[in-house]
Amino acid sequence: MTNLPATARAAEAGGWPSSNPPSERPERPQDLRLRHAALVLRTIQLHGPISRAQLVRLTHLSQPTISAIVDGLLAKDLLVWQGEGQSTGGRRPALLALKPDSAYVVAVDLGGTTMTMGLIDMGGRVVRREQVPSPGIGGDGAPEAQELDTTRTGLQARTFERVCQRLQWFLDSVQTERPRLLAMGLGLPGVVDPTRGVVTMAPALGWSGLSVVESLEQRFGLPVFIENDVNAAALAEHKFGAGQHLRDFAFVAIGTGIGAGLILDGRLYRGHADAAGEVGYLAIDREWVRQAIATGAATGEAFGCWESLAAAPAIVRMAREEMECQGQTPPADLTAQRVMELAAQGDPSGLRVLERLAENLALGLANIVVLLDPEAVVLGGGVSKAGDLLLSAIRERLAKVSPLIPKLLLSSLGEDAGLLGAAAVALDGVLPRILSRP
Amino acid sequence: MTNLPATARAAEAGGWPSSNPPSERPERPQDLRLRHAALVLRTIQLHGPISRAQLVRLTHLSQPTISAIVDGLLAKDLLVWQGEGQSTGGRRPALLALKPDSAYVVAVDLGGTTMTMGLIDMGGRVVRREQVPSPGIGGDGAPEAQELDTTRTGLQARTFERVCQRLQWFLDSVQTERPRLLAMGLGLPGVVDPTRGVVTMAPALGWSGLSVVESLEQRFGLPVFIENDVNAAALAEHKFGAGQHLRDFAFVAIGTGIGAGLILDGRLYRGHADAAGEVGYLAIDREWVRQAIATGAATGEAFGCWESLAAAPAIVRMAREEMECQGQTPPADLTAQRVMELAAQGDPSGLRVLERLAENLALGLANIVVLLDPEAVVLGGGVSKAGDLLLSAIRERLAKVSPLIPKLLLSSLGEDAGLLGAAAVALDGVLPRILSRP
Repeated sequence: MTNLPATARAAEAGGWPSSNPPSERPERPQDLRLRHAALVLRTIQLHGPISRAQLVRLTHLSQPTISAIVDGLLAKDLLVWQGEGQSTGGRRPALLALKPDSAYVVAVDLGGTTMTMGLIDMGGRVVRREQVPSPGIGGDGAPEAQELDTTRTGLQARTFERVCQRLQWFLDSVQTERPRLLAMGLGLPGVVDPTRGVVTMAPALGWSGLSVVESLEQRFGLPVFIENDVNAAALAEHKFGAGQHLRDFAFVAIGTGIGAGLILDGRLYRGHADAAGEVGYLAIDREWVRQAIATGAATGEAFGCWESLAAAPAIVRMAREEMECQGQTPPADLTAQRVMELAAQGDPSGLRVLERLAENLALGLANIVVLLDPEAVVLGGGVSKAGDLLLSAIRERLAKVSPLIPKLLLSSLGEDAGLLGAAAVALDGVLPRILSRP
Repeated sequence: MTNLPATARAAEAGGWPSSNPPSERPERPQDLRLRHAALVLRTIQLHGPISRAQLVRLTHLSQPTISAIVDGLLAKDLLVWQGEGQSTGGRRPALLALKPDSAYVVAVDLGGTTMTMGLIDMGGRVVRREQVPSPGIGGDGAPEAQELDTTRTGLQARTFERVCQRLQWFLDSVQTERPRLLAMGLGLPGVVDPTRGVVTMAPALGWSGLSVVESLEQRFGLPVFIENDVNAAALAEHKFGAGQHLRDFAFVAIGTGIGAGLILDGRLYRGHADAAGEVGYLAIDREWVRQAIATGAATGEAFGCWESLAAAPAIVRMAREEMECQGQTPPADLTAQRVMELAAQGDPSGLRVLERLAENLALGLANIVVLLDPEAVVLGGGVSKAGDLLLSAIRERLAKVSPLIPKLLLSSLGEDAGLLGAAAVALDGVLPRILSRP
């Protein structure tokens, strides 16, 4: 194993009891009840307001099971009766809906540069959002001159303390509204072990082997759940976004690096060492790999093949090449987003970059598609802002290299993807606990 | 969609009730009972002879549940008491084992060239094996001059009739031993829809849209189950072979083409259109793909990128190049197997082919590994006969391109992989039916 780039999706461990039951260990009846209750909640979220009869039809659960679950959810104040549906002959059926403002989670999208905190209701609505600098490496976390302990452990403790202070400030500010807080969810770039609640390695934050969950739970008295940020974003797409009705899809985040979160058979697939989706390392160019091996850059600190050829730094590099080729002087502050804007405006250099980028993206996507045959690939991250122009260029290329063409979708969550990912992690983690209480 | 090569793993549809329950549709209690019974059977198969107490510990099922299931399986004559285990203080516990000769399945590995039929017991032992020419394109299936109806439908009907005649002969020959036949399993190269029981497309047999299951069940009065051959082989590795104790692994068959079967979270993963594992199309060489697009060979009838660079025809091509480079005249009848034998004997040309092959195989395997993070990759098919020499060359290369290194294993089923795959399909398909009968 080598150190993975902070921006790439990396190994994280464990599984939520609700989302990833080991297949060789059959469910106990109480687990099954939880899963049924979660299914009913999710069905109401997707299709509500909805009648009991419709719930029976959509969930394939029995009438008595549905009634028992619905009564329990009503008692916990998570559902509400809302109006009446169409009559099919007799009385018009009463309709059930989520009671979105009945409870909230605190979601934290902890990047290396910014830290976004949000208050999010059961239906995925962001009620409150605060963005502050991250105490990480790219934020305001550089060690200050007056600090004496600059050992790794000392830095880590201080960075974590700053995260806690910012969380305390946010919690204080929302407590005035007295919301019913169920849990806190935290998404961060790096190697995360959700089962043990430990951040194994997060270079962007300078953390390694930090027991984040235990510390935060003791400090704030809330159940806390952590997840790798790309996995969290995939869960968010599944719960609230473009992947809501999809059973098998790959969420591919293209930014400084490339990472993927896989929803297979309706659940987050983690892999054996919880490192599935490390797609920045997809080998799409034998010649690139040969040169990287020769110079020692194929693994280790350097980026993987696909992200080296198709992520944001590659876009800027290609744009410089194209501009210089045209005798233009590339601006010093050229960004990937600016290049995509130029392409959208019909700039010839921008359009050539778009074509080259689409080729490289299509090769990596083809590898994901022929291996997994997903119903869709959902593109997120900064590059996805290039939108339909990029999407149709990728689609055209993909048709030339893959016998299978899934739906290509853009993330529908935009800026809130990370926040909603952390919220999804919190909701998935805490719902079984809530539903299992009498 | 394009036509897929017959040798590559291709789209097949549906799911076995026992192995692939839709995640959004929770199990009915009777399905759960079946799954528990299948788990008990499988645990006894892997760990037997075994006591009830050990079964409770390994399955996490309750004592009463285990007792009820064991009593049911004993009543159906599928289990047998076999000796006594170690005492832990009190009476020595009685041990349970599978009664392997209590029941059998008929397994059919129907290739384009040969058709292998076997009688296989519950424990995966091949009791009887017969190999005959396939009535397919590469066997004795070419239309004969005296045949009048040479339309596609006519050819298909005749080929299928010949398959039935060979099956009848095999069944007649085993009936003299009066075994208890539970089901028939059929593995074949091509696009298979297991749910509808239809072979959608199998160019090697000249079949398309053929209702194989219904026809065979009517003719032979046995439950029949079909599956794509590579998926079947992956199931066989999981049930009887190198993947027995693995929860996440990729079975990669390297022959004329390359295909994969994926066992994820302990179950066969099929993908959205049941076409997962079409890894012959993995794009590992951007330059190759560009040229293939330019010449129109990237998809369609031609092979995919990875199999063009790493399957048997590529091995022969590389060997010719190396020999000609040395001023040698390559033998006209050079085969991939012969090239691997030459390498094993230390032949310089053979060794150089081995190195080049290992590079190309490692690139495709790296793509599977970084996306799925499997515990192991099990290599099967003809090329895997090159054994440990090839394996260690691949391992060395893989370490240079992938941050994750899974176990690399060779199929332990050898010649019987296809037959045992068909048997696994039959057992997985029929056990729920047997266990649900009162």
